[in-house]
Amino acid sequence: MKLYTYPRSSASYRVRIALEWKGIAREDVPVDLASGEQLSPAYRAENPEARVPLLIDGDVRLTQALAILEYLEETRPDPPLLPPDAAGRARVRQLALIVVADTQPLQNTGPYEYLKDPLGLGDAERGRWYAHWVRRGLAAVEAHLADDPRTGHFCHGDAPTLADVCLVPQVANARRAGLDFARYPNVARVCDTAMALPAFERAAPEAQPGAPR
Amino acid sequence: MKLYTYPRSSASYRVRIALEWKGIAREDVPVDLASGEQLSPAYRAENPEARVPLLIDGDVRLTQALAILEYLEETRPDPPLLPPDAAGRARVRQLALIVVADTQPLQNTGPYEYLKDPLGLGDAERGRWYAHWVRRGLAAVEAHLADDPRTGHFCHGDAPTLADVCLVPQVANARRAGLDFARYPNVARVCDTAMALPAFERAAPEAQPGAPR
Repeated sequence: MKLYTYPRSSASYRVRIALEWKGIAREDVPVDLASGEQLSPAYRAENPEARVPLLIDGDVRLTQALAILEYLEETRPDPPLLPPDAAGRARVRQLALIVVADTQPLQNTGPYEYLKDPLGLGDAERGRWYAHWVRRGLAAVEAHLADDPRTGHFCHGDAPTLADVCLVPQVANARRAGLDFARYPNVARVCDTAMALPAFERAAPEAQPGAPR
Repeated sequence: MKLYTYPRSSASYRVRIALEWKGIAREDVPVDLASGEQLSPAYRAENPEARVPLLIDGDVRLTQALAILEYLEETRPDPPLLPPDAAGRARVRQLALIVVADTQPLQNTGPYEYLKDPLGLGDAERGRWYAHWVRRGLAAVEAHLADDPRTGHFCHGDAPTLADVCLVPQVANARRAGLDFARYPNVARVCDTAMALPAFERAAPEAQPGAPR
């Protein structure tokens, strides 16, 4: 498989975790988001969304991290990242989507830059925006984790699932931004447990070639 | 099933379409987003995310529209809203997620209001924000639809899928906001086809009891 990726892209990070967890070999194609390479005509010809990740698996070309994660789960189900029961799978997808739909898109680089140019907001206002949406997302995940007996060493039971795969990169971003995790003890606990696993370690931004320091 | 819903919530609209398409009877519980009822302690006790939709199916309580759609597909697969092949399902989820993750969260009421209070942006700047992200999302869907022979009368082939289920409410929002669709001919075509189906018509905001005029 070929993965178009960038070390600090949290959507790429999700896919790297799943590939590492499932033991799927990959060739990384770096796309330098810092210099805007994703907006180049050459990359737009690969992916009209002008985003990473992009996964190529034979004839299959896929964007959108959660679609890629579901595809990997369907085509390489062992070891699994979804539980065996429909209700459990639904809960895992619900937790994943709180990150994928309600949190990460709002704190992502594109909107953050757009608030400055053209909308003219300063760093203090943009920092408030960032913290507001990340806190709201993590509080929602925390409430679900705290209230449900299905929460275990990980978000759902005692093995990692797509919920942890999506939550860990979001938490890594929030920690890098200096957010306090005192109000999210379950989120912090499951992420610390997951991050200690070799597959999660190998997928981390700082473990990638060319990672910013 | 019980669905906590609001007529103009596009995430609720997605779930209503799937329930109608699959012929699943439901009891609607209205949550008045216009007056902020979703933020009330009573509703937060039901759903700590303070959002709609919330689906209750026996012992299963689920938030996050796409998680609900996948759950309905797994537990009530006929008539289907995902194609039979893994590559096709991946493409459908990719198209759905361009709406669910990259478009709708940015144009949603919460961020739109936050840009005004506390961030102080005026209506012109907020309109620019709205149009920018909606156009970016629809352009990405359009590029995928235009480039792929799997596009048919609908986003993927000649029957509706989760891609159409997610795209139609986004397009309805964009049309209500007056966006021009000349640059998105495939998006406009598949949505017009889908909106003419009885299941999509019955799920529309204006077909709901108590819908704003």
